[in-house]
Amino acid sequence: MTFEVTILGSSSATPIFNRNPTSQLLNCNEKFYLIDCAEGTQQQLIKFGLKASKIDYVFISHLHGDHYFGLIGLLSSLHLNGRIKPLHIFCPQALQEILELQFKHSDTHLKYELIYTFTDATKSEVIFENNDVTVETIVLNHRIPCTGFKFTEKKRLRKLLIDKLEQDQVPVELYPLLKRGVDLDLPNGDVIKNLDYTTDSAEPKSYAYCSDTLMDEVYFETIKGCDTLYHEATFLHEMLERAKETHHTTALQAAEVANIVGAKHLLIGHFSSRYKTLVELLDEAKSVFTNTDLAIEGITFKI
Amino acid sequence: MTFEVTILGSSSATPIFNRNPTSQLLNCNEKFYLIDCAEGTQQQLIKFGLKASKIDYVFISHLHGDHYFGLIGLLSSLHLNGRIKPLHIFCPQALQEILELQFKHSDTHLKYELIYTFTDATKSEVIFENNDVTVETIVLNHRIPCTGFKFTEKKRLRKLLIDKLEQDQVPVELYPLLKRGVDLDLPNGDVIKNLDYTTDSAEPKSYAYCSDTLMDEVYFETIKGCDTLYHEATFLHEMLERAKETHHTTALQAAEVANIVGAKHLLIGHFSSRYKTLVELLDEAKSVFTNTDLAIEGITFKI
Repeated sequence: MTFEVTILGSSSATPIFNRNPTSQLLNCNEKFYLIDCAEGTQQQLIKFGLKASKIDYVFISHLHGDHYFGLIGLLSSLHLNGRIKPLHIFCPQALQEILELQFKHSDTHLKYELIYTFTDATKSEVIFENNDVTVETIVLNHRIPCTGFKFTEKKRLRKLLIDKLEQDQVPVELYPLLKRGVDLDLPNGDVIKNLDYTTDSAEPKSYAYCSDTLMDEVYFETIKGCDTLYHEATFLHEMLERAKETHHTTALQAAEVANIVGAKHLLIGHFSSRYKTLVELLDEAKSVFTNTDLAIEGITFKI
Repeated sequence: MTFEVTILGSSSATPIFNRNPTSQLLNCNEKFYLIDCAEGTQQQLIKFGLKASKIDYVFISHLHGDHYFGLIGLLSSLHLNGRIKPLHIFCPQALQEILELQFKHSDTHLKYELIYTFTDATKSEVIFENNDVTVETIVLNHRIPCTGFKFTEKKRLRKLLIDKLEQDQVPVELYPLLKRGVDLDLPNGDVIKNLDYTTDSAEPKSYAYCSDTLMDEVYFETIKGCDTLYHEATFLHEMLERAKETHHTTALQAAEVANIVGAKHLLIGHFSSRYKTLVELLDEAKSVFTNTDLAIEGITFKI
């Protein structure tokens, strides 16, 4: 199953040349989940050849503009381009008022439904679930209410050993039952043992998205053991005081979090515009957690 | 005096690859006036090496998102980048509520003042004046209240004939009075006739920005004789019915307007995303008004 994230923005606060503020597109089994939506996100989708029309779920971490100012434009474009299927938005409650006020004054009546689920930044909870994935909020510590999101794949069906099934002429009609782990007693007395014809599917993977936050143990338990951790790393550690003042994290701290929670892979992003190149941020994080990458525009990471 | 406009967006409704929705930056005597501000305008300014910090005046024609969704992000970035000088916004009244709601929920307290002047879409009136320019609204005919803006240079001081002044040893201290057209009777009995030492300055130029509108004689008088006319030209004339339905103009009509009002130069823009290339729109307009150009991203036109 596809489970990968494409970075649409890596800048904190303001765009700079070649860096857009935060947005990411998660592809889980060819369903598309947009995580945050800064100004210019729809242009980034176009630039990287990604179809906004395929997005069915939008997750907004908090109401600082560098995480949501692009949403109103994206929603408007979907409307103008003929969308009729509903779109689910998971966000702080006030976002609905912000969007509706703008639709009102532009006399826009969307041809599709917006289905809101409001996040509660005070507790971690499951806010969405389908056949592919469960989404849980992550309690973060920022200047205004802010949640991260953890996406955990559902356990897949067992894998069929096709060569052996064909060799023993097991009827194809039985494959779906075997995928579900069933042992079969056939009317002719044959017994088909599931373990002879299937293997376990891969362990479900998880992606934890930690938007803007102070490094704070409040969220460690929720993201424990995640496969890929995205963590903001706005500053170098020499700017720790500034990071604390603004409720942000340093690259060193992001790597420490990855170590503490036992993540397998760390992505860092949300870089301050003061950094024209990012290699120092990467090196700092890698000094503590080797398997770190820069979450920069246009790159897709498999989870 | 510099009087020129740089195009930041040429697309209608939605961005497409290489075309951003509407925004323009007017430079009048090295003061900067932003006209409309679609999503991505701040990124376009960065791309073309233009400094957002130099903008002191913003004019928003109407509250369709493709003309203002970028303003909240631009204002936020100015704040984050340390702006303290006031910014003047000329716009429909509801825009203040839209902006303030978003500042409230992001807990943003701007370090500079926003000074609003609300436009009245029912009449043409002067809404701004300084030593360089007068700005007048243009009554347009769109689906929601919408105004264009006409920028008219102030008449400049007379030009000094320096060679002649130096030859006749006219004291430099008298130059400012001569620039103002004064004849001088000196205490020693000498008479300095202004016409001997100055020539008239160039005639003031004007730039008329006609945002989204049906072709409608209601605005012809206001823009009569303008030097450069920007007029939207969303469709080819074969789409006239669609243009009427959506209260837009065809390229042919934009050129007819230029002829009727006696403009010297026509810029067309606000192109529908259905047009992947623009040459047909340009050819259609030129068939009626030869001196037409495409108002496309990154190009600066002298007025």
